[in-house]
Amino acid sequence: MGLEDKIRRVTPYTPGEQPKGAGIIKLNTNENPYPPSPMVREALEAAAAGGKTDELRLYPDPAASDLTCAIASAYGLSPEEVFVGVGSDDVLAMSFLTFFNSDIPILFPDITYSFYDVWAELFRIPYEQVPLDDNFEIRAEDYRRENGGIVIANPNAPTGALLRPEEIEEIVRSNPDSVVIVDEAYIDFGGISALPLIRKYENVVVVQTFSKSRSAAGLRIGWAMAGKKLIRYLSDVKYSFNSYTMNRPSIEIGTACVRDGAYFRECCAKIRATRERTAEELRGLGFAMRDSSANFLFVTHPEVPAETIFEELKARGIYVRWWNRPRIRNHLRITIGTDDEMRTLAAALGDILGKTV
Amino acid sequence: MGLEDKIRRVTPYTPGEQPKGAGIIKLNTNENPYPPSPMVREALEAAAAGGKTDELRLYPDPAASDLTCAIASAYGLSPEEVFVGVGSDDVLAMSFLTFFNSDIPILFPDITYSFYDVWAELFRIPYEQVPLDDNFEIRAEDYRRENGGIVIANPNAPTGALLRPEEIEEIVRSNPDSVVIVDEAYIDFGGISALPLIRKYENVVVVQTFSKSRSAAGLRIGWAMAGKKLIRYLSDVKYSFNSYTMNRPSIEIGTACVRDGAYFRECCAKIRATRERTAEELRGLGFAMRDSSANFLFVTHPEVPAETIFEELKARGIYVRWWNRPRIRNHLRITIGTDDEMRTLAAALGDILGKTV
Repeated sequence: MGLEDKIRRVTPYTPGEQPKGAGIIKLNTNENPYPPSPMVREALEAAAAGGKTDELRLYPDPAASDLTCAIASAYGLSPEEVFVGVGSDDVLAMSFLTFFNSDIPILFPDITYSFYDVWAELFRIPYEQVPLDDNFEIRAEDYRRENGGIVIANPNAPTGALLRPEEIEEIVRSNPDSVVIVDEAYIDFGGISALPLIRKYENVVVVQTFSKSRSAAGLRIGWAMAGKKLIRYLSDVKYSFNSYTMNRPSIEIGTACVRDGAYFRECCAKIRATRERTAEELRGLGFAMRDSSANFLFVTHPEVPAETIFEELKARGIYVRWWNRPRIRNHLRITIGTDDEMRTLAAALGDILGKTV
Repeated sequence: MGLEDKIRRVTPYTPGEQPKGAGIIKLNTNENPYPPSPMVREALEAAAAGGKTDELRLYPDPAASDLTCAIASAYGLSPEEVFVGVGSDDVLAMSFLTFFNSDIPILFPDITYSFYDVWAELFRIPYEQVPLDDNFEIRAEDYRRENGGIVIANPNAPTGALLRPEEIEEIVRSNPDSVVIVDEAYIDFGGISALPLIRKYENVVVVQTFSKSRSAAGLRIGWAMAGKKLIRYLSDVKYSFNSYTMNRPSIEIGTACVRDGAYFRECCAKIRATRERTAEELRGLGFAMRDSSANFLFVTHPEVPAETIFEELKARGIYVRWWNRPRIRNHLRITIGTDDEMRTLAAALGDILGKTV
């Protein structure tokens, strides 16, 4: 057996482009157009002050207790109900590894966050992709059958479709023998969180992130909320192979970030308002879309192929997301930016479509 | 199948204690007693300045190019020969996943870094632990047989024993069909790096860390150096399931840290000098130990059990490391601190042993 035979070969994932340059409008990775809370800057200044940087010689607190407590406090939980990780990708991957440990296939939608099947493959977890209906909706009743676990993004990505709290509860209630992970990366932009379920059911895990509504994708922080038992299992698995993952600056800055609830709610409200205005403008240009509960719109145009619009926008310095994948290749996912950015987008789309906005 | 049957249950790893409190002397997790380079503070100040914190809303550069280039430049490499990760634990785990992908058992010493068997179990990699000789040395000839890969810590932990460059080269040369990972977490404290081998052999990966010689355990940065092909395979696997792991502050601070080569060499020289003085003092107290090439001593006493000394030191506010494990349960691993700390340690040991230092 030769060297190359022993090496794992994969098709590398292509993340959304990270274009640099003045005048670029970046609406392709669902980042928040507003800066993080001013408290973040204060935390960074504090981290740079006095002898504070000397502490960087020491390992961080493996439990990231300050951050865990701040999140628990923001959501009315005890710290034993919270698990933090390096972005929700890390938290979700750890959750797959911990909770999806049987030979029965796990279930998730055919159109959803693109890492679910990747993690299942990585950890050799059998899985089945449950098709969304023709309106790109998740049907709760499709998840009422034997399974090794369930993961649902709510709102779903890239569709922006939202399940109502009763629908999520129905999935959790009808699967007492499986862990149901609810990935709420976008919940703050218009949905109702499944969080209350964690004290009612022992089989539900709610995952959220700093990358979207908290304006801090650059910090790489995500967290899970669940009953104490599931959180303990998750921590045990995590500590069993990597004790220290959250670095000291992240813990300090993240703690400040999550404490500023008022700022965060204000940004979310601005984004919702911009989203509704943009949706109206784009519908005026002939785009079809469903209502979005996230910080993006998932749109299609009856006359011009999505790929063409994608390329034309890029030529104008506006980056949106397009996937060359079955069922969705005639759709674009457009992140909600500032009002100014969205006005520029609408004008560019009008130009591309030969219409006046 | 019930809920608990589907959940992975593990024995959680217990990291070295992280005691807090004034007057504690912490010699248990091999941290550097000296603060990181003054350039680290400048980088943190810069990160807090002006509109810089606004950038935290954006995802980091997935390739952490600034940091990768700074490391490449410090070691005379091209950026394509460097892969960075969240601590060397992350880099090593990714390397296991990428390079140890056959059904043939991988090889590593029976006494070595305690995560190797954990990652092998996690990724279902078959492995064999090769016993160190009675003097706790790795014998290069033990690694001249069929294997799915090899990982060697050099200097080894917790023994501090060093293989000579010829011995490492012999292991690499005699295993052209396997990847050999050389974990050089402690190399800067007295060993000669295997780095030149990466341009001579295509099957060697050298892993280093910011946590020891760079005084930045709190930053969580490690990296691998290898030929471009192996680095590309490693990156492909990493990107395939988590695009963004190094956060923005880490990239900025880490870049500054690695650029200050002079400061780093000065700290290493101080630690080596303190180590030699401490070794002499401890030998004077009757401790037996081999020469260490790392920032710790691995010692045993012919009269007093290691566990007793461990507990007595802890009662005096001095934390060292003791493992209740076969072959090494009568040994202590003592991190090299400042001269003052080591004088206090020696006095405490003299007190415990009823001897005058």
